[in-house]
Amino acid sequence: MKTRDFPWRWQKSLVIFDLESKSMFKKVVIIGFGLIGGSIALSIKKNRLAKELVAWDTDQDCLKKGSELNMIDGFAENIKSASEGADLIVLSVPLAEMRGVLEQIDLQDQIITDVGSVKGSFVKDVEKVFTKVPPRLIPGHPIAGSEKKGMRASEANMFEGHSVILTPNEESDKVALDKVSKFWSRIGCKISLMSAEDHDAILAKTSHLPHLLSSLISESMYDEPDRSGALAHAAGSFRDMSRISASDPAIWADIFLSNDLKLIESLDRFLVRLENMKNNIASGNHSEVKTFLERGKTVRDHFSSITKEL
Amino acid sequence: MKTRDFPWRWQKSLVIFDLESKSMFKKVVIIGFGLIGGSIALSIKKNRLAKELVAWDTDQDCLKKGSELNMIDGFAENIKSASEGADLIVLSVPLAEMRGVLEQIDLQDQIITDVGSVKGSFVKDVEKVFTKVPPRLIPGHPIAGSEKKGMRASEANMFEGHSVILTPNEESDKVALDKVSKFWSRIGCKISLMSAEDHDAILAKTSHLPHLLSSLISESMYDEPDRSGALAHAAGSFRDMSRISASDPAIWADIFLSNDLKLIESLDRFLVRLENMKNNIASGNHSEVKTFLERGKTVRDHFSSITKEL
Repeated sequence: MKTRDFPWRWQKSLVIFDLESKSMFKKVVIIGFGLIGGSIALSIKKNRLAKELVAWDTDQDCLKKGSELNMIDGFAENIKSASEGADLIVLSVPLAEMRGVLEQIDLQDQIITDVGSVKGSFVKDVEKVFTKVPPRLIPGHPIAGSEKKGMRASEANMFEGHSVILTPNEESDKVALDKVSKFWSRIGCKISLMSAEDHDAILAKTSHLPHLLSSLISESMYDEPDRSGALAHAAGSFRDMSRISASDPAIWADIFLSNDLKLIESLDRFLVRLENMKNNIASGNHSEVKTFLERGKTVRDHFSSITKEL
Repeated sequence: MKTRDFPWRWQKSLVIFDLESKSMFKKVVIIGFGLIGGSIALSIKKNRLAKELVAWDTDQDCLKKGSELNMIDGFAENIKSASEGADLIVLSVPLAEMRGVLEQIDLQDQIITDVGSVKGSFVKDVEKVFTKVPPRLIPGHPIAGSEKKGMRASEANMFEGHSVILTPNEESDKVALDKVSKFWSRIGCKISLMSAEDHDAILAKTSHLPHLLSSLISESMYDEPDRSGALAHAAGSFRDMSRISASDPAIWADIFLSNDLKLIESLDRFLVRLENMKNNIASGNHSEVKTFLERGKTVRDHFSSITKEL
């Protein structure tokens, strides 16, 4: 019987029934059960995307806690056994651990994706392990996160309304790309496809450089003789500008070094602007300083109009 | 009759009665009725600090609107008539307009304070107009604000829980200093006293440099060929790091140039760190990069523990 034989109200019910009963995947495996892995688990459960959801991590306590909380249906002893029989593997370990994880995967016809913040270095790791990027491996990056750390900070709606960038290549399997896209769409994300290189160039500007600057804004106060006194007089601007400097130093050191070339390119362009601004302030050039600030305001207002986050 | 003759419960009522009935000032005049002036008006009304509250601004529409909304009791035609009979004058005009405003004040025995973001330049303006800082003029700066602009964005609780820095000198009138301190205390602020120079050094680090960096983070995207596309992939880090770049360019150009020496000092120290970080990334020095990030995280965690704003 086709759905058009039913009145509209019933069709709607049927659609809901269909979505809820039919999971996209039989067995999804999350490798790396931290903030992002945990939030993906919650998103999968919330949207009923897997019949079975299994996780692996070096931290057994987190896995046990995740099972107790029904965030996952079970956990594996090692990556090899976790990857057996999976139809989707999501890699959510820090960049520096990707290669070691890839080496342990028992590669068959699983679809594999990852959530790493740098795509060029991930593709290099994949090529080192598998000679070339397996057609059913679709590199990805959900543009979302938090300065918090660990599975316990997971959020079921971390990715909703955010974009996910996928960086397939010409040999990517169309079915795998389609399934990974639908996976993120069902979680509530907007999907963008681009090359790994374009991804890394954009993220250097919109995420990695701002992160580096945030850390240095905080770090500049490290040696302050009366740091408590100075920080007590800091308000909203310092609060916002320093927020992401609370992020995990090891993970971000990895990101900076993995995207070193694009980050240094962005940093060099930023340094030119900073020197320029400094000279304009030193020479009292009010009109040039104001022009810089106006251009910045134009971009921020543009961003606000796009994201409607203000 | 002394309050100790009453049982405790009655004493408390008496105190409330006393606070509500007895305004601190007969006539308060706010010169400059924008975001900050408007928020001060709302704070004064909320805390019943003035029997009469008058404002002056070049923008007559704002003054009329403020009267209609009962934010103020009336407005003056010019600064001279506004300042007559006032016992407190609060200057909340942009830094560049302070001198012109000071020249028009009919100086008698009014207490005067201001809310300017730079204190050294304000003191210089005062000295140019009055030869020396009048003893009853107490320079001040509430460390609060918003990237929004104009009287209509005013908030009655903008200053609550924030600090206010006052920069009296050795010749300051003790009664005037006490009254200005109590004025801000009653609004809900914590008061700090320091020299104008210390104020400007601290604010360069905690506010002016972060602001400059925020503007340049946004400005760096100005010439981006596909700016919409890039901004669509920006998330929480860019949102926070760019927020204050939406602030009024003219006001912030004034602040940067008014605090030029301290700001350039901070900027130079920041540039050294930025070059250092760049070299560590270029040479793949993971441990040094991580150390920088750890020091930044230490400061941010320190800040969070002080402000409990996270």
